[in-house]
Amino acid sequence: MVAQKTQIAPPKLGEPFLLTPGPLTTSYAVKEAMLRDWGSWDDDFRAMTKSMRSQLLEMLGEGADDFDCVPMQGSGSFAVEAMLASFIPKDGKTLVLANGAYGKRSAQTLAYLNREHIVLDKGDYLPPRGEEVAKILAEDPAITHVVAIHCETSSGILNPIEEISEATYGAGRKLLIDSMSAFGAIELKVADIRYEAMVSSANKCIEGVPGFGFIIARKSELEAAKGNSHSLSLDVHAQWAHMNKTGQWRFTPPTHVVAAFLEALKGHKVEGGVAGRGARYARNRDVMVEGMRELGFETLLKDRWLSPIIVTFFCPADENFVFDQFYALMKEKGFIIYPGKLTVVDSFRVGCIGQMDEHIMRQVVTAAKETLAEMGVASAAPPALALQERAKLAA
Amino acid sequence: MVAQKTQIAPPKLGEPFLLTPGPLTTSYAVKEAMLRDWGSWDDDFRAMTKSMRSQLLEMLGEGADDFDCVPMQGSGSFAVEAMLASFIPKDGKTLVLANGAYGKRSAQTLAYLNREHIVLDKGDYLPPRGEEVAKILAEDPAITHVVAIHCETSSGILNPIEEISEATYGAGRKLLIDSMSAFGAIELKVADIRYEAMVSSANKCIEGVPGFGFIIARKSELEAAKGNSHSLSLDVHAQWAHMNKTGQWRFTPPTHVVAAFLEALKGHKVEGGVAGRGARYARNRDVMVEGMRELGFETLLKDRWLSPIIVTFFCPADENFVFDQFYALMKEKGFIIYPGKLTVVDSFRVGCIGQMDEHIMRQVVTAAKETLAEMGVASAAPPALALQERAKLAA
Repeated sequence: MVAQKTQIAPPKLGEPFLLTPGPLTTSYAVKEAMLRDWGSWDDDFRAMTKSMRSQLLEMLGEGADDFDCVPMQGSGSFAVEAMLASFIPKDGKTLVLANGAYGKRSAQTLAYLNREHIVLDKGDYLPPRGEEVAKILAEDPAITHVVAIHCETSSGILNPIEEISEATYGAGRKLLIDSMSAFGAIELKVADIRYEAMVSSANKCIEGVPGFGFIIARKSELEAAKGNSHSLSLDVHAQWAHMNKTGQWRFTPPTHVVAAFLEALKGHKVEGGVAGRGARYARNRDVMVEGMRELGFETLLKDRWLSPIIVTFFCPADENFVFDQFYALMKEKGFIIYPGKLTVVDSFRVGCIGQMDEHIMRQVVTAAKETLAEMGVASAAPPALALQERAKLAA
Repeated sequence: MVAQKTQIAPPKLGEPFLLTPGPLTTSYAVKEAMLRDWGSWDDDFRAMTKSMRSQLLEMLGEGADDFDCVPMQGSGSFAVEAMLASFIPKDGKTLVLANGAYGKRSAQTLAYLNREHIVLDKGDYLPPRGEEVAKILAEDPAITHVVAIHCETSSGILNPIEEISEATYGAGRKLLIDSMSAFGAIELKVADIRYEAMVSSANKCIEGVPGFGFIIARKSELEAAKGNSHSLSLDVHAQWAHMNKTGQWRFTPPTHVVAAFLEALKGHKVEGGVAGRGARYARNRDVMVEGMRELGFETLLKDRWLSPIIVTFFCPADENFVFDQFYALMKEKGFIIYPGKLTVVDSFRVGCIGQMDEHIMRQVVTAAKETLAEMGVASAAPPALALQERAKLAA
């Protein structure tokens, strides 16, 4: 076992840890950064916006100069909608790679936009593979764009974004990535993975509080995006052009949330950037999964596909296991877990992101153990159907 | 002079007061409410959302039962776009009443939406009057909706919303109100003023921090709004239906901003609700305008049209007056003012909203006096053109 450098203190106000994919548990320093007011028109705040944009771009590594960062008010889904509407021309055709709620949400967004699209729907959790993408693109030359979900938090799977990118550009098409819950903890260096634009939000792996998202896109795509958007508020080109001209957001920014995010970026840097953050989350996952498996729980995914973001466990087959009760008892012990989203078998999810380390994750396992005992659940083993389901997945 | 009940303390971290129309200076308690994290899926947060919605509805007075409140992530303009797209059917035709930037923004939003509209553009500050609205509606029976700005902060004018409502319903059409910077300080009781929907945001007269807006609409309109929206994220019907079914926001809410808003609502209630809040702002305006006039400054608007939200002053004709310098020196003294938006003559604005009282407003006047002296401005009188401009306005 590797020793942990820092032990993370529990939140000062004693609220439960959020074992959820964001909003997540943030550091007290991040929240303290919200204890003052800023004028959104004032130079001080413009400097904050500028610093935030350049720090995010730095995470792209070599080649980042070809990209720019455009923050967008609202939740992550607002930023996804903004990206899709701004970079896919009205006469474009999109292939959406779906294996969970977020892929489906992208398809639903394109339906609202009346933009032509087809969906490769892999069900609850199976990954869309490069060769499948290549085949669809070869058969349908009208497709101009591919939309992929980096980490699909519905199941917690880390989708094979490299092979998806290779298949997309191998066929001369363009890739847009929803990296909502991965960016900041999983590398997305532009020298390694080609894409035109990606989106994430403040309250994910950078560990800020919710209130805005951001789009990182190739400058040539930002230039070309003029006139594409269906929405004034969500027009990425207009936000970008205005911000570069004036240093201001077009409409009122969530000033306090931006201040918190800058503090979060400091913490991210101190921890060693994307690599350091990703290593802590991976350790969180490893410790938590190992402990839960010792209790008899089984993960939905085989190890190869487990992301360091969130992990899906099958609910135990034991008839004494009732999820709502499990949730309430875990919350009493200081841990808020997340319900599952599988359609075939019951499940729940445990997040690995936020201000938590392996010590906290051991406490989570202990709390789960105690909770099972309180509920009278003798075995955490899943129903046979669950294991049959998992067998569909390649190791 | 009426004695003030409470003297408001300066912000604890010593930042300047924001004499701007939002983001504004909030109480320390409002910001302290953000010092913890919430799970957006958890019951605790659902209860917060529910409480917020019902408290906002209470401000409508008798008849509020026919309405519901739908919060929407993003800035106020996101909520305006959501309202317009959700309540004006795709085949509707809208009359937009514009006398400043916000009226124009509504028209621009409708242009993005490809929805038919005409604009009554009254220029920089002249109010759209009831008889004008009645005439346009009589001449164009295709118009289905009228969009009005309650307080147009470009000039600070309080538009005559009562006569606009009477003219609209007198002609059998429907009214949508952008009450962004007025709601919470100026009464908008549904028993007194008829409308279908209105919109405001967290960081205005309720004195929360920015991060979301809210739409208050007649339930029958909410029901009928299904399928109207151009946008998944901004679909008011979908947000409303989901929230009423699950208690949750459809997509990640700005949890900390909501917590701050609940604290702000407490403060609003303690101050005596809309009437109490409005009285303090009116007193702020009266004290500040009187002091500025004593220094020789002139307001753009005649007294009848001055809102208790923000006041536009003409820049002095004196050649030593340079706005950027005035701004910087006022900021050094602890007050952030706001640039003007008039096209014909130079101007600046001073807000009356936020955690400030008449004592603070006197300090603002003193700071302005000292700043003029430092700049070597002998007289704060505006150019003759400014007074000619003002003469266009009815007393």
